Amino acid sequence: MHLEQIKSPEQLKKIPVQELPRLAEEIRQFLIESLSVTGGHLGSNLGVVELTLALHYLFDSPRDRFIWDVGHQAYVHKILTGRRGQFETLRQYKGLCGFPKMRESEHDVWETGHSSTSLSAAMGMAAARDLKGENHRVIPIIGDGALTGGMALEALNHIGNEQKKIMVILNDNEMSISPNVGAIHNYLGKLRTHRHYHKIKDEVEFFLKKIPTVGGAFASAAERIKDSLKYLVVSGVLFEKLGFTYLGPVNGHNLVELMECLRQADKAEGPVLVHVITQKGKGYLPAEEHAENLHGVTKGYKLESSKGVKKPNTPVKYPKVFGDTLIQLAEEDPRVVGITPAMLSGSGMNEFAARFPDRCFDVGIAEQHAATFSAGLATQGMKPVLAIYSTFLQRGYDQLIHDIARQNLNVLLAVDRAGFVGADGETHQGVYDIAYMRCVPNMVIMMPKDENEFRHMLYTGYRYDKGPIAVRFPRGTGLGVEMDEELKELPIGKSEVLREGRDVALLAFGTMVPLALQAADQLAREGVKAKVVNARFAKPLDSELLDRLCEEETPILTIEEGSAIGGFGSAVLEYYAEQEVYGMQVKTLGVPDYFVEHGSVNDQRQEVGLTVDNITGIARKMAPRQRRRA
Amino acid sequence: MHLEQIKSPEQLKKIPVQELPRLAEEIRQFLIESLSVTGGHLGSNLGVVELTLALHYLFDSPRDRFIWDVGHQAYVHKILTGRRGQFETLRQYKGLCGFPKMRESEHDVWETGHSSTSLSAAMGMAAARDLKGENHRVIPIIGDGALTGGMALEALNHIGNEQKKIMVILNDNEMSISPNVGAIHNYLGKLRTHRHYHKIKDEVEFFLKKIPTVGGAFASAAERIKDSLKYLVVSGVLFEKLGFTYLGPVNGHNLVELMECLRQADKAEGPVLVHVITQKGKGYLPAEEHAENLHGVTKGYKLESSKGVKKPNTPVKYPKVFGDTLIQLAEEDPRVVGITPAMLSGSGMNEFAARFPDRCFDVGIAEQHAATFSAGLATQGMKPVLAIYSTFLQRGYDQLIHDIARQNLNVLLAVDRAGFVGADGETHQGVYDIAYMRCVPNMVIMMPKDENEFRHMLYTGYRYDKGPIAVRFPRGTGLGVEMDEELKELPIGKSEVLREGRDVALLAFGTMVPLALQAADQLAREGVKAKVVNARFAKPLDSELLDRLCEEETPILTIEEGSAIGGFGSAVLEYYAEQEVYGMQVKTLGVPDYFVEHGSVNDQRQEVGLTVDNITGIARKMAPRQRRRA
Repeated sequence: MHLEQIKSPEQLKKIPVQELPRLAEEIRQFLIESLSVTGGHLGSNLGVVELTLALHYLFDSPRDRFIWDVGHQAYVHKILTGRRGQFETLRQYKGLCGFPKMRESEHDVWETGHSSTSLSAAMGMAAARDLKGENHRVIPIIGDGALTGGMALEALNHIGNEQKKIMVILNDNEMSISPNVGAIHNYLGKLRTHRHYHKIKDEVEFFLKKIPTVGGAFASAAERIKDSLKYLVVSGVLFEKLGFTYLGPVNGHNLVELMECLRQADKAEGPVLVHVITQKGKGYLPAEEHAENLHGVTKGYKLESSKGVKKPNTPVKYPKVFGDTLIQLAEEDPRVVGITPAMLSGSGMNEFAARFPDRCFDVGIAEQHAATFSAGLATQGMKPVLAIYSTFLQRGYDQLIHDIARQNLNVLLAVDRAGFVGADGETHQGVYDIAYMRCVPNMVIMMPKDENEFRHMLYTGYRYDKGPIAVRFPRGTGLGVEMDEELKELPIGKSEVLREGRDVALLAFGTMVPLALQAADQLAREGVKAKVVNARFAKPLDSELLDRLCEEETPILTIEEGSAIGGFGSAVLEYYAEQEVYGMQVKTLGVPDYFVEHGSVNDQRQEVGLTVDNITGIARKMAPRQRRRA
Repeated sequence: MHLEQIKSPEQLKKIPVQELPRLAEEIRQFLIESLSVTGGHLGSNLGVVELTLALHYLFDSPRDRFIWDVGHQAYVHKILTGRRGQFETLRQYKGLCGFPKMRESEHDVWETGHSSTSLSAAMGMAAARDLKGENHRVIPIIGDGALTGGMALEALNHIGNEQKKIMVILNDNEMSISPNVGAIHNYLGKLRTHRHYHKIKDEVEFFLKKIPTVGGAFASAAERIKDSLKYLVVSGVLFEKLGFTYLGPVNGHNLVELMECLRQADKAEGPVLVHVITQKGKGYLPAEEHAENLHGVTKGYKLESSKGVKKPNTPVKYPKVFGDTLIQLAEEDPRVVGITPAMLSGSGMNEFAARFPDRCFDVGIAEQHAATFSAGLATQGMKPVLAIYSTFLQRGYDQLIHDIARQNLNVLLAVDRAGFVGADGETHQGVYDIAYMRCVPNMVIMMPKDENEFRHMLYTGYRYDKGPIAVRFPRGTGLGVEMDEELKELPIGKSEVLREGRDVALLAFGTMVPLALQAADQLAREGVKAKVVNARFAKPLDSELLDRLCEEETPILTIEEGSAIGGFGSAVLEYYAEQEVYGMQVKTLGVPDYFVEHGSVNDQRQEVGLTVDNITGIARKMAPRQRRRA
C-alpha cells in the first residue's frame, strides 16, 4: 500500500513513476469505500485521480497554485496533501469541507463552490506574480461545463489579451451536472475512443469536411458539432484564437501520455490550454453508467450496486413537487415555459423536459442569460418559470433588477435551496435572497410552510400578472403533509394565523413555521399564549396583521431562515418605523452576519439558534412578566 | 426637408430610396443641433443613422422586434417613430428618455441601459414567437464592446444551439466607451478603408498567413489579431462555429450595400449575424475625432468646436479625486493595482493608466471577471482597487459574495455613481448597493460627506486589512471644499458629530450630510436644536453613538441616498431591536420602493423628498412638542 505513506506531495514525488497506476487504484478504492459511508461527490473525483496525481507529481504545490474550479473534484488533492485521515468527517459539521478550504491546508489557495471562477482567479494570481517578479506556475483546472459560464469566457478573453503565463487544464468529461447543453456527446464519444488522442483534432477537421451538408441523423449530429461552442473547444480553435497554445486532447487516465503532455505545456510561452479527456466515475461501474445520479451521493449507497439505499416512505422532495406542479400548469396553459441554468435534474425538471421538450430550456451554466431570456419571453406574453437555486440567483442579480423587475415583467422565480443547504456549506447557503430581492422594486417574495402550500404558491405565482414574483423554498424533503387536490390562489401579501394567542406573536417565514408551532406548544405548557403566524410573504407585508398586533400590543418575534440583516424581520421593523409606531416590542431572529459552514441543515440551524428551544426561550422573555415561569 | 414629414416608419417607407442619404443628412443635422441644447449621446447615434434608416425602411417595426443593446443609440429610432418633437426634453425630468422606453412607443419593445442584454432578450422573443406559431423578425443590434460581456456570450451559445431565427446586427465601431480592450484598431482600421468590404474576410486570412511570426511592431500587431476574440469576431469564425450564418463586414454608412446585405441576411435559415462597420460621430468632425469625449455630451457644446463649454471654476469631479488618490497610493505602495470594467475614463483612471500601465487593468465589459480577478490578486497580497459603478456592481454580486467577501479578501471597492445618477435614469440609479452589500458578511461600507473626506476614506480602505471594504461615492462634482494635504485613516465604524443638539438627531449618510446641516440651520432658527451626525459607515454602525442617543432619548432621523428598504436606516432599526430598545423614535428617509426615472439629480431628490425642506419638516415633527413652532 502506497497510499498510507503519502502525507504530502513531497512523499508522492518519491514513488517511482511506474507505481503511480497502482496508487491510482488505491485512491479509487479509498474514495469508493470512504464516500459510501460519508456521501460526497464520487463521480467527479474518480474522474480526476490520474490528473491530480500527475499535477502533484510534476509540479510543486503550494508554490505552484492549483485552482480547482467548482472545487468538488478536489478530494484526491486533499488526500495527497495530508487530509486522508479526515475523510470520515467529510462534509460533516466541523469536519473536512467538500470544497477547497484555505484554513485546512496551504495547498488550498482558492476557495470555491460556484462554477467558472477559476480562470479569473488564475488571472489575478498570475498578474500578481508578474508584478512581484515571481515565477511560480498558476494552474486552474476547469470542467467543460463551467466554460459556458459567462465569467469564464470573460476571463479567457482577458488572459488571451494579456498573454499571462497560465496553464489551464480543461477537464472535459462531457458533463456539467446535467449532460452538457449543445454537446453532441455520442459522436464525440466515438472520437474519444480513438487510439490516438493527440491526432484527434486533425481527424475531426478532416472528418467534418467530408460530411455532406444534408444527411441522416449521424450527419446532422456531425453538422451540429461544426456549429457549436463545443466544437470551438474540442478543436482548439477558440483557445488558439484567444491567444492560447492548445494541447490535446489527451487521455486523462493514461498517466504516461498525460504527464508528457503537461511537461510540454510547461514549456510554452504565455497562456496554454491542456485539453484532458476524463470519465466521470472512472473505475466504479455504477458511477460510470449513471454519472448524473452519482454526481453527489448520499450516505449508504451499496458498494456493489448502482443505487443508494433509500429510506422507506420518505416525504416527497421539494424539486419533485416543483416539477409535478410545473407539468400541471404547462398542461393547462401553453404559455408556461420552464427555464433552468444547468440544473434540470436538481430542479426536478426531467419529467417536464420529457413531456414538454419545446417549452423546457436548459441554458447551461449561464444564470445571467437565464434571467434575461426569461424576461424576453415575458415581454411576449409567455409565462416563464425560472427555476434557480437561491445561491445561483446571485449571478443573475443585475438581470433581476434591470431586466425583470425594472420592466415589471411577469416572471415566476422558483428559488430553490433557500435557507441552509447542509453539506455544501457556506458557498451554497441560500440565505441572502430575501435581503437582496426585498430592496428591488416590484418584487413579491413568498415562502411556503410546507410542500402543500408550496404548490399553491407556485399556482399563485403563475396566476399573478402584475410583475415578478418569487417563491423561495428549501432544500430537501417536505413535511409529509397531505396534498390538496386543487390548486388555489393565495391572496398577495396576506399571512395565515395558525394559532391564536396574545402574549407573544411568532411571525414565522416558510420553513420556520413548524418550529414556531412547536415553540408555541411548549409555551402553552408554561402558560404563555403565543399567536403563530405563517407569514407567507416577505414582500409585500401583511399590514393589516401588523396593525392589529400593534393595537393589541402583542410583542413580536420574527423568525426566518435567511440573513437577519435586511430580511423579513427588518421589513417588519421598517413597517412600524414608517407608521411612526415606536413602542412595539419586535425582535428578529434569522441567520447572523457570518458565513455558516457545512454540516447538516440541523447542525446549521442549531449553531445560529433557529431551533424550537431558542425560539421558545426568546418568546418566553418577551411575553408579559406575569405569564412567565421562573 | 423630408424629416418633418416622417411621423412613423410607414411614412419613411414612402420616400424613394435614392432620397435616403439626404434624409440621413437631415437627421444628423437635427441630432447635432438638438443635442447641443439638451446634451445626450451624440457619437453613437451619429454612427447608426444609416443603419437605423435601413432597418426601418426594410423591415416592419413593431411587428418585427428591434432590440437596441445598451439603448443609448436609439435616438434615430425615436426620431423615425414619431418622437422628434420631444427631443427638446431629452433626458430631462418627465421628458423623453435617453433609452428605449415601452410606454413612449409601441416601437420600443425592450428597455435597456446596461449592456449585453439584447441577445438574451432576442432569444426569449424568438422562442416565444416559435411557440406561438408567429413569424415576425427579431433583430438585436449590439455593439462590439458589448460582446465581451459574459452574458452576451452565454446567449450566443444558446441561440446557436437552438438555431432560432434571429438576425443579430453587430454594430462594430471599435469602441465601447473606452477604446476596446484587446482590439488592435489601427490595423483593423486599415482593413476597413479597403474598398471591398465583402472581400475583407478572405484578405485578413490571406494577409495573416503571410506575416512572419517574429517581426516589427506591425507584425506583432498582426500577430495579436490572430490571437484575440476580436479576430474571432471580425473573421466570422466565432459566429460560424456557434451556428450562425455570418455576413459582412459591410459599410454601415453606405445605404445601398447595407440594405442589400440585410436583404440577404433576411433569407437565411436560423440565426444570422450581420457585421456592420460604423463610425462613431460620423458626419460631425469633432465627434469623429474625439469619440470617447463625446460619448455623452453635456449641454452647451459649441457646434463648431470639439469642446463643451465648461463652467468656470467648477469644483473637482469625484472620479478625478479618485484617480489622483489612486496614483498617490500607487506611488507609495507597489501592491496597489487598479481594475475597471471598461470605465477607464469614466472612473477617472486615464492618468493612472498612463503612469502605471502594468498595474492598471481594464478588463472590458466584464464585471463578473473584474470582481473575481480582484479577489485573485488579493490572495497574493496585492492591494486591488476595483473601480466600479454602483449599478454595474450588481453584475458582479455573486462574485462579491462568493469570491471576495466569503474568502474575506482585502479588496477595496470604489463604488462610483452611488445614489441618483440624473439623466441616465432608472437603469443606472446607484441606489441598491447599501442594501445588497449590507447583508453580505465581512463587508465594510462607507460614504463620504465631501470630496476631501472621500480621499481619507480611500486611504482608510487602502489601509484596512481585515477584508473587503467599499467606499461608495456620488456622481458628479464635489462641494468645492478645501482638501487636506495629508491622507488620514478614519476609525472603522465611527461617525462624526458635526453639530450638537438634543431635540432631534439627523443621522446622514454621505451626500445627505450637507442637506442635514442646512436643515439643522433652519431648525435652529425655529428653536429646535438638531444634532447632525455624519454617519460615515453603514456597516459596521457606530454603536457607541446609537447607545448615547438612546440614553439621551433623542429622536433619530436617518437620511440616505439609497433604497430605504434594507439601507442604512434599517441598520439603525435592526440595532435597536437587537439591543431590545423598544421605545426609540427612529424614522428613516431614503429612496422609496419604485424605480426613479431620468431628470437631474435634484429633480430626483425632490421627487422622493431627499430635500432640506422635507428633512426639516420631518425632524420638526419628531422634536419634543414644546420646541416646535406652530
